[in-house]
Amino acid sequence: MDPILLLVIVAGLLAVVYGAVQSASLMRLSAGTPRMQEIAAAIQEGAQAYLRRQYLTIAGVGAVILLAVALLIGLPAAIGFLIGAVLSGAAGFAGMLISVRANVRTAQAASESLEKGLSTAFRSGAVTGMLVAGFALLGVAVYFWILTGPMGNAVTDRVVIDSLVALGFGASLISIFARLGGGIFTKGADVGGDMVGKVEAGIPEDDPRNAATIADNVGDNVGDCAGMAADLFETYAVTVVATMVLAAIFFRDSAAVATAMLLPLAICGICIVTSIIGTFFVRLGKSRNIMGALYQGLIVTGVLSVIALYFVIPAVIGDSLTGGGVTYSAMNLFWCGVAGLVVTAAIVVITEYYTGTGFRPVKSVAKASVSGHGTNVIQGLAMSLESTALPALVIIVGIVATYNLAGLFGIAIATTAMLSLAGVIVALDAFGPVTDNAGGIAEMAGLPSEVRVSTDALDAVGNTTKAVTKGYAIGSAGLGALVLFAAYTEDLKFFAATAEPGSFFEGLGAVPFDLSNPYVVVGLLFGGLLPFLFGGLSMTAVGRAAESVVAEVRRQFKENPGIMTGEVKPEYGRAVDILTKSAIREMIVPSLLPVASPIVLFFVVLAIAGKVNAFAALGAMLMGVIVTGLFVAISMTSGGGAWDNAKKLIEEGHFGGKGSDAHKAAVTGDTVGDPYKDTAGPAVNPMIKITNIVALLLLAVLAHGAVG
Amino acid sequence: MDPILLLVIVAGLLAVVYGAVQSASLMRLSAGTPRMQEIAAAIQEGAQAYLRRQYLTIAGVGAVILLAVALLIGLPAAIGFLIGAVLSGAAGFAGMLISVRANVRTAQAASESLEKGLSTAFRSGAVTGMLVAGFALLGVAVYFWILTGPMGNAVTDRVVIDSLVALGFGASLISIFARLGGGIFTKGADVGGDMVGKVEAGIPEDDPRNAATIADNVGDNVGDCAGMAADLFETYAVTVVATMVLAAIFFRDSAAVATAMLLPLAICGICIVTSIIGTFFVRLGKSRNIMGALYQGLIVTGVLSVIALYFVIPAVIGDSLTGGGVTYSAMNLFWCGVAGLVVTAAIVVITEYYTGTGFRPVKSVAKASVSGHGTNVIQGLAMSLESTALPALVIIVGIVATYNLAGLFGIAIATTAMLSLAGVIVALDAFGPVTDNAGGIAEMAGLPSEVRVSTDALDAVGNTTKAVTKGYAIGSAGLGALVLFAAYTEDLKFFAATAEPGSFFEGLGAVPFDLSNPYVVVGLLFGGLLPFLFGGLSMTAVGRAAESVVAEVRRQFKENPGIMTGEVKPEYGRAVDILTKSAIREMIVPSLLPVASPIVLFFVVLAIAGKVNAFAALGAMLMGVIVTGLFVAISMTSGGGAWDNAKKLIEEGHFGGKGSDAHKAAVTGDTVGDPYKDTAGPAVNPMIKITNIVALLLLAVLAHGAVG
Repeated sequence: MDPILLLVIVAGLLAVVYGAVQSASLMRLSAGTPRMQEIAAAIQEGAQAYLRRQYLTIAGVGAVILLAVALLIGLPAAIGFLIGAVLSGAAGFAGMLISVRANVRTAQAASESLEKGLSTAFRSGAVTGMLVAGFALLGVAVYFWILTGPMGNAVTDRVVIDSLVALGFGASLISIFARLGGGIFTKGADVGGDMVGKVEAGIPEDDPRNAATIADNVGDNVGDCAGMAADLFETYAVTVVATMVLAAIFFRDSAAVATAMLLPLAICGICIVTSIIGTFFVRLGKSRNIMGALYQGLIVTGVLSVIALYFVIPAVIGDSLTGGGVTYSAMNLFWCGVAGLVVTAAIVVITEYYTGTGFRPVKSVAKASVSGHGTNVIQGLAMSLESTALPALVIIVGIVATYNLAGLFGIAIATTAMLSLAGVIVALDAFGPVTDNAGGIAEMAGLPSEVRVSTDALDAVGNTTKAVTKGYAIGSAGLGALVLFAAYTEDLKFFAATAEPGSFFEGLGAVPFDLSNPYVVVGLLFGGLLPFLFGGLSMTAVGRAAESVVAEVRRQFKENPGIMTGEVKPEYGRAVDILTKSAIREMIVPSLLPVASPIVLFFVVLAIAGKVNAFAALGAMLMGVIVTGLFVAISMTSGGGAWDNAKKLIEEGHFGGKGSDAHKAAVTGDTVGDPYKDTAGPAVNPMIKITNIVALLLLAVLAHGAVG
Repeated sequence: MDPILLLVIVAGLLAVVYGAVQSASLMRLSAGTPRMQEIAAAIQEGAQAYLRRQYLTIAGVGAVILLAVALLIGLPAAIGFLIGAVLSGAAGFAGMLISVRANVRTAQAASESLEKGLSTAFRSGAVTGMLVAGFALLGVAVYFWILTGPMGNAVTDRVVIDSLVALGFGASLISIFARLGGGIFTKGADVGGDMVGKVEAGIPEDDPRNAATIADNVGDNVGDCAGMAADLFETYAVTVVATMVLAAIFFRDSAAVATAMLLPLAICGICIVTSIIGTFFVRLGKSRNIMGALYQGLIVTGVLSVIALYFVIPAVIGDSLTGGGVTYSAMNLFWCGVAGLVVTAAIVVITEYYTGTGFRPVKSVAKASVSGHGTNVIQGLAMSLESTALPALVIIVGIVATYNLAGLFGIAIATTAMLSLAGVIVALDAFGPVTDNAGGIAEMAGLPSEVRVSTDALDAVGNTTKAVTKGYAIGSAGLGALVLFAAYTEDLKFFAATAEPGSFFEGLGAVPFDLSNPYVVVGLLFGGLLPFLFGGLSMTAVGRAAESVVAEVRRQFKENPGIMTGEVKPEYGRAVDILTKSAIREMIVPSLLPVASPIVLFFVVLAIAGKVNAFAALGAMLMGVIVTGLFVAISMTSGGGAWDNAKKLIEEGHFGGKGSDAHKAAVTGDTVGDPYKDTAGPAVNPMIKITNIVALLLLAVLAHGAVG
């Protein structure tokens, strides 16, 4: 085994070991009073039951696709698909397992001090983060080693490329189901529970009399934690794979090809180490600024990563890499890596500006709540639309800068460097649902109100960090758009050049992706409509799921008046059951939309206008889905965060405080923002990836001659 | 003068004559009781005062641009700019003048019968519609005649093309200000008035005790009527100009060039005649179905237009047109025209589905209102996102069909045919604000409640037809995207081919608009962000304008308790004044965004990556702004219409009826939809056109050597 690859695998294992050690240490913390443990057990049970059913359903769909991949492309690709799918599922499941145990411990720790609460929640987030990064890196690196070592393929063999792409497909498929199913569950519970509890019955959030409270807490774990983990696993795996595929293409005829393909793995490996170190710097300082504590860990990771890349890139590739007649200097590639880290930092700062309670956007939404529900929503929508501009400009600058440094490969390296921080970014995010749960447990277990103040403070920061992760994931998709597009066009060129007589690609020639070709415009528009339609379908799904919860909670209140007086406990389990069925039913159709769309578009245009235009339209569709998807996703996730924190700001006593009319209006905004930021918005990222990967696999299938 | 051109000018004059005759006949109708006349006079005064100030402000900006056009391109272009600007303003002003007089007559007529109410309102709408189409056609046709007749230029001379494009620019510039200024005014009044009246004070809509009611009614006239008229004038003029420019390019070396350039004018001319005939078929049948009556007029116009095109196209061009080595048969061009009409019909039907009270989307929003404000808004957003898919597919099919029939020129002819129905489409739209006003006047003048029932029924249909016009305008922009892009690329080729030594275009060579060029992706993303940022800025502007109204009405309630008891009349004029100032202040920055953006992008990329990439990025930006703008605009206009009609549906007694909690939630949705559908959404269409035209003019300026 190549020593670099070995070190990469060691880094991946290190992440897993970190996760195991931290988990064990977390488990030793006190789980609080028997009442707290009882509540936590109900959440655990519900979350495990939901995820088990969700994964079983996905397994059904996945088995069909697995068979199709095996038949149409080959067994190694099918195994790759399976690895990606299983590890993505495992990352989500493991994240859920730790957070359903950390929540009650965080509640207990927060009752001792804010510092302990933060530390407990953050460490559990870090477990999820490191497992996501570790599993993803191990999956790609180990399978790459198996394909090229024991199985004896050359690194640029089609079987290697197809199998890695199939691994990405497996990860994407799981992640869209997990993001969407989890998102529908969590927001169905949240919206439905708030409507029937806060609005109708007039009882506070997380009140134990509300039958939907346990479901709401279950939702945090299966949506914001497990769904998010699967999503980031997918983003990480697909980015690394795309960079490796691009390296295989660009350096095909060069001796440096293996080294070029290892470079993204090496970058991810070293950044796992810097991320682990960074987690130890998350500490509440004297200023007791929670966001500051998290920033400290992130900044340490970022600075260490820059230093590490400065040494690691030349160590891996020497002074330069040459392939396809172009020489890439190690220093230029280093600066590309730095650009990726700077894009990450810029997106973090911009997202904090748009979703943090201390800045104009959230304040303006809170202020607009004073004049009513309508103005709250109008201002929230205004901020959600506005919030897309700066991230898009950052991505534009990133593309221009890295392209000028090292061409498309430079953009790929920048995207990889961006994603290499996923471990620590996920850590910042996954601590959010844990604190949210902790607050719920504190409320239900009747802990003193100071505990809730601590968990609320943590939760407000969690809203921002959640938005950060989503902006980061979709931002990397924007930066990586050209990389995925290049993988498609270069594959197309390769198949056209190597087509055998009688095969599909014979005599294809050059495919023009020029904007003056109407089929390119058709592809852009068709791709562009997907995020909108997908968003509409998933918002509707949340509405339906929420309605099922409202009906159930109303029924319980009505049939059992003892619930309202607190004499009888509501049947929490029934609400969880109903939501489970609803979420799983609702996730299927929207998830299959991006799988089917590229195939439909390709064959329709093929029938009308021939192969060249069909490939042109399909390629343009990949770009179209990113161009609108980037804006739709950022507007939804930032806007939703702003609404949520505007409510938090009012609850802290500004603009009338809790119980005021402004507060009611802010609750409406928060409700609207829920499916925006936690269901539709974040699912756009895996949706974009799936359309891209399905297109790549379609090329592979056509090249294998099984279709056409 | 060419006899065809003469006939076109006659058709344009016919439209103006129709407007004058109908106006005179409307003026003879009874204006109701003295109280009604008093209210109507206040609305008239406010609307005229606002428009006067708005046009004065625009004149300031316009004078600077006029000077710039004169200096950088030449006097004929400056005159073209002035013609476009003045006629666009005149169309808006005339529309306002007729509707502020028709409103009170409609209230009076509705008190006699629903049929008379419909007839009065629709005829006033038809006046606006025909004036818009007539002014636009006359402006283009007469100036084209002056340029090529008395001034003696060849039809393909640059001075002719530049001057026509400048005419489009003048129209676009006025229209974005008018759409946005009027939109901010009307929605500031509507939102602010509702918040402080319906929500805070608990008094009904249009209650005379609310100081904002007159301002609300003024807003309907300056926003939904004058702003809309300016917008459609612009869409009409720019589409005709773009088709003529494309014809001048494609047939440059052919004897048929003048004929090809006259074809779009001829299509518009004959369709003015069919539109006028169609207006006479709008009659309430036995079923008393208002939408059915309007459809009848539209269907008659559509069928007559198909028949007319079948004869007119061969009459103008003979059997075929040949240019640039391609022969376009008259029948293929006829089918392209039919395709444009079919796209119009499809968009009407789809929009009715998404915004009419009889179908799933509006019903689902109304139903969601039962569970609260939040779910109403969620379902409205879901429908708004979903509503983009079918129109986009229709446009895609339209592009593919017409391109296969007759290439890019076929797409241009289809877009022209689509816009040729603007007269009757505007008629359907402009009747909406008139009935809205009539309802307000009926309420304030204390007419019997049956009158209000009639005007409400008309108003509900008006919400759908308003959404139709907006979908139609933005749909034509989508269909015409390739036409505007082709005008840009062909101009670029022309300047590159004819560049003199030392000029900016010397040695430029081919500009590749391939998606694999990063600067093309940069252009797509930069263009893509504009509709989002623009939408965010204009929503914020409405919020601020509404707050100024809320503060004023609150002040009046507080300082003068007699207002609430009905003893004292509120100071309506102050609310109008405050809004006037606010709307004019707020419209400036967002309106200049699309003017400045293409210039900034071009020069920034020029500095970084040279001429070829700067032109590539600028071209891609034009496509990017359409790709996201299409979806943003449709989602806003359809979604807003759905919210408004969901409220109407509840007010008709469904899902709890007036005064129920569901109704309150529906009012919130309506409030949110207001700036969506009447400010931000419709302004996206002129915004797209401006970026395109500024890009075309930038080429002309660079070719004149004044810059660079």
